[in-house]
Amino acid sequence: MTRIAFIGLGHMGLPMARNLLKAGFPLSAHDLVPEAVAQLAGEGARAANDAHDAVQDADVVISMLPASRHVESLYLGDDGLLAYIAPGTLVLECSTIAPDSAKKVHQAAGKLGIDLLDAPVSGGTAGAAAGTLTFMVGGAAEALEKARPVFQAMGKNIFHAGPAGAGQLAKVCNNQLLAVQMIGTAESMALGVANGLDPRVLAEIMRQSSGGNWVLERYNPWPGVMETTPASHDYEGGFMSELMAKDLGLAQETALASGSSTPMGGLALHLYRVLLRQGLGKKDFSVVQSLFGAPEE
Amino acid sequence: MTRIAFIGLGHMGLPMARNLLKAGFPLSAHDLVPEAVAQLAGEGARAANDAHDAVQDADVVISMLPASRHVESLYLGDDGLLAYIAPGTLVLECSTIAPDSAKKVHQAAGKLGIDLLDAPVSGGTAGAAAGTLTFMVGGAAEALEKARPVFQAMGKNIFHAGPAGAGQLAKVCNNQLLAVQMIGTAESMALGVANGLDPRVLAEIMRQSSGGNWVLERYNPWPGVMETTPASHDYEGGFMSELMAKDLGLAQETALASGSSTPMGGLALHLYRVLLRQGLGKKDFSVVQSLFGAPEE
Amino acid sequence: MTRIAFIGLGHMGLPMARNLLKAGFPLSAHDLVPEAVAQLAGEGARAANDAHDAVQDADVVISMLPASRHVESLYLGDDGLLAYIAPGTLVLECSTIAPDSAKKVHQAAGKLGIDLLDAPVSGGTAGAAAGTLTFMVGGAAEALEKARPVFQAMGKNIFHAGPAGAGQLAKVCNNQLLAVQMIGTAESMALGVANGLDPRVLAEIMRQSSGGNWVLERYNPWPGVMETTPASHDYEGGFMSELMAKDLGLAQETALASGSSTPMGGLALHLYRVLLRQGLGKKDFSVVQSLFGAPEE
Amino acid sequence: MTRIAFIGLGHMGLPMARNLLKAGFPLSAHDLVPEAVAQLAGEGARAANDAHDAVQDADVVISMLPASRHVESLYLGDDGLLAYIAPGTLVLECSTIAPDSAKKVHQAAGKLGIDLLDAPVSGGTAGAAAGTLTFMVGGAAEALEKARPVFQAMGKNIFHAGPAGAGQLAKVCNNQLLAVQMIGTAESMALGVANGLDPRVLAEIMRQSSGGNWVLERYNPWPGVMETTPASHDYEGGFMSELMAKDLGLAQETALASGSSTPMGGLALHLYRVLLRQGLGKKDFSVVQSLFGAPEE
Repeated sequence: MTRIAFIGLGHMGLPMARNLLKAGFPLSAHDLVPEAVAQLAGEGARAANDAHDAVQDADVVISMLPASRHVESLYLGDDGLLAYIAPGTLVLECSTIAPDSAKKVHQAAGKLGIDLLDAPVSGGTAGAAAGTLTFMVGGAAEALEKARPVFQAMGKNIFHAGPAGAGQLAKVCNNQLLAVQMIGTAESMALGVANGLDPRVLAEIMRQSSGGNWVLERYNPWPGVMETTPASHDYEGGFMSELMAKDLGLAQETALASGSSTPMGGLALHLYRVLLRQGLGKKDFSVVQSLFGAPEE
Repeated sequence: MTRIAFIGLGHMGLPMARNLLKAGFPLSAHDLVPEAVAQLAGEGARAANDAHDAVQDADVVISMLPASRHVESLYLGDDGLLAYIAPGTLVLECSTIAPDSAKKVHQAAGKLGIDLLDAPVSGGTAGAAAGTLTFMVGGAAEALEKARPVFQAMGKNIFHAGPAGAGQLAKVCNNQLLAVQMIGTAESMALGVANGLDPRVLAEIMRQSSGGNWVLERYNPWPGVMETTPASHDYEGGFMSELMAKDLGLAQETALASGSSTPMGGLALHLYRVLLRQGLGKKDFSVVQSLFGAPEE
Repeated sequence: MTRIAFIGLGHMGLPMARNLLKAGFPLSAHDLVPEAVAQLAGEGARAANDAHDAVQDADVVISMLPASRHVESLYLGDDGLLAYIAPGTLVLECSTIAPDSAKKVHQAAGKLGIDLLDAPVSGGTAGAAAGTLTFMVGGAAEALEKARPVFQAMGKNIFHAGPAGAGQLAKVCNNQLLAVQMIGTAESMALGVANGLDPRVLAEIMRQSSGGNWVLERYNPWPGVMETTPASHDYEGGFMSELMAKDLGLAQETALASGSSTPMGGLALHLYRVLLRQGLGKKDFSVVQSLFGAPEE
Repeated sequence: MTRIAFIGLGHMGLPMARNLLKAGFPLSAHDLVPEAVAQLAGEGARAANDAHDAVQDADVVISMLPASRHVESLYLGDDGLLAYIAPGTLVLECSTIAPDSAKKVHQAAGKLGIDLLDAPVSGGTAGAAAGTLTFMVGGAAEALEKARPVFQAMGKNIFHAGPAGAGQLAKVCNNQLLAVQMIGTAESMALGVANGLDPRVLAEIMRQSSGGNWVLERYNPWPGVMETTPASHDYEGGFMSELMAKDLGLAQETALASGSSTPMGGLALHLYRVLLRQGLGKKDFSVVQSLFGAPEE
């Protein structure tokens, strides 16, 4: 049976690791927060002393960390984890990081004969818990095939985006578009309601028309339109504005490097930065509705 | 059988009228262009001498005109058509015009006991020909029920958006959102491809993920991703950029009147104006892709 | 001696009328707020019973009102003031209104042989009190020459912008640019300070370099950079954000009518609308600094 | 007499070096383009074989290179120039580069006891030729005092912006603001002219009013308003759009690093990227006027 080492048990990593345990994978786990490790150990994982210990005898290493610098610091350098991982091991780097950073880790792994995939996810904490995440994967197709059963224990859609770094790139493009259409949806909702339309009626018309999008299907930013969205629960839960700002920052970094023009993506970033300044960084990213008007006012 | 008068036989009006004829409705028709009238007469319509002649004995009057000023000039004033329409007649005003303009015509019709609905459509010339238009309807619910069989001969989805003017408002909100996500999609496509992603793969990943929207489902702006889109045919056909600029202008007018904040909607308008200045007003609105990069370059 | 009727004694009108009294002009005054009229009467004006009474025997009529609808309602219609003003009288319409609205009043005045100038001002309440306003004047050059001594009692710079409506157009263009560079200045101040620059040093470098502008000369939005600016007094006084939003709205209306592309002007409007929603409409327009960061935080 | 080594004889470097020769400084010069070195040698400079040769016996080293990577590659690394420069030497790094890159070079120099100043310029090729550049200087105040005579041979205004990197930061902030007000000016010019104003009259009114800025004083983007501007010479000469795009990219990098919100600065970058895509990267940056309308059309 494939032995897995899981590093990074935060809001996303913990439920992902849990789904691997449920699927029967032997799992060793590490996180800087001992409580998270203890919790998972109580559910059947081996509590590793540190990252180096975790990857001992592992067939697959999975990491889920906050940002590029944590990932580079984990894997690279003289004492980096790659030096402790046996050739032939499969590394699934699931953090959302800069495509260039992902390529750097790919390159280092390649030199050591380690199969690495960049495999950022979408679907949020709810998708992590339900095991319905989407994985956008960059790296060799054969490595993806080997990894498929592991991904399937944690997610539903597994896309092969292309070579090294392509998973991060696809996620950056997708999340930039998501932010643009969240803001566009919030603007049109506020515009219609300010002029007398019923928010539920407007939401339903646009959902079924050419304005239709994922936000209108699952995640309407107007309070009360959908019962289970963060918008209907004071914008709690979901995907935090500060994480969306991070992803939009990665998109702008990527656009800078390629000389791309992304006026809507750039504006989205700067509007989220305004929200963060107003102390709304921990709220769900649909709280951008508050910039344009919402019923509480 | 319900007798219909149809005024305005342009790119949209002509195929809409045709579908009414096919459904068996007796139809009288008028347009300033005699050729359009002659063509429809050849298919069974009565060629009216003018608008006043067209509405003689009509149970339902349908108008499909370019802009607010044409609609106001047709219906209002001492010699306006409303003065020649019998009380109890049903008027379906299907042009895309300013919500305030629609309300003005509603009010005048109401004083004369004429049932009027503002019922702008979405779906483009393809939807008009196929009889699959979406109608967004403002006005009394009972009037909508009376009009339903007529709408059904021309379209598939019929939404009741609310009272007088609500149809126009819903369309304005929907089309603003459509423009924002067309531009957002074009930006993310260009960003991904500039960084090495395959356009088809990226399009498919976003379509199935949280970036999913109507544009990715049916109308991808990147040439070659979908065979039948305007993007794959030099941006010919479809919905012209200058018409999208018109709709975005109506959105900004509406936002000005209500003091609404729509930064993405405003930016969309000004980017389309840049396109128009470059002589691309007659191209499909997905030509906005050219601002950000496309494969021909 | 030229007899003047002054209608509209608000924050701007009252100090302007006062300067005319000081210059020795006989003045009759009207405002809907009796206290304002009484105050000016105490300083030597004749308190008129209403607008019609005010213009009795006047050689020059000056109006200073909040918006287009007030101006149209004052002058136009069967009982409008123009019907009570003798041919040959000079009307100085100093309100900031839509250029199209100004043209409408010009046209009506022209038919009656009344010389009208649209003459919006810039300089704020401080300039009104000090008699240092700038007048941007539209209408016949000869009329401007006749009006010059009156303008000079209230202002310092008198520009002839062109024919009817040109004064309003020039003001709209100027204030759109002012808003854009206020926001641009606030962004660059926040960017520099967030990265460790001293705000006073940065302000001085940009002021003397190619970033130099009126805002950096007189109206720095960063608290403490200049002692006498609203920014250094909790953004009190000066030119209210809601008035800037109004002017930016006029700019967008004008841009819509001419099909002009103004992405920065449009974004400026929508950012000010965000500020208004946050309850900052009565603060000076330099409070836009708070969107991007300011020292209090 | 202070001996100077000058590295980088491009559009800016060559005329700057020339002014140093004219001021009597003994100068050794290096550039990858031998013609540039030969030209300067013809005017009295010593042609160095390479950068290492150039800095032999120099009291002051000046570099003027295209971008961060060239500067880092010149100075840093085992074979970097810093290793060949004697402690106590003064290095004036005049390229426009990322503030973080400047700090890196500062740090390396500091360790070796070399006095380094980041000293990017503004004023363009015209200012370089005339010796009227502005220097924005980061680093120790005493080093700036030592360097002052050298700066004064090339420029007019020398600002001490703060510690290491502050010169680059000040330039980034200034140029972002310059771009924003160039675009804002172009928008208002086009808006006014489209509505009938005379461009010269409008330009003069705004210049003397609250819209006043450096662009209106010296660099109006509307052809024909000022005889000597690039706008009046088919946008040739001046400061190339692609260089402005580079500077706006540095501003966005800086904003990303500090989490700053700069919606106007971000939009400016993306509009310049649109211009570059249209093949206008080598034209003066006032060519942004063409996006919004200009008389040739």
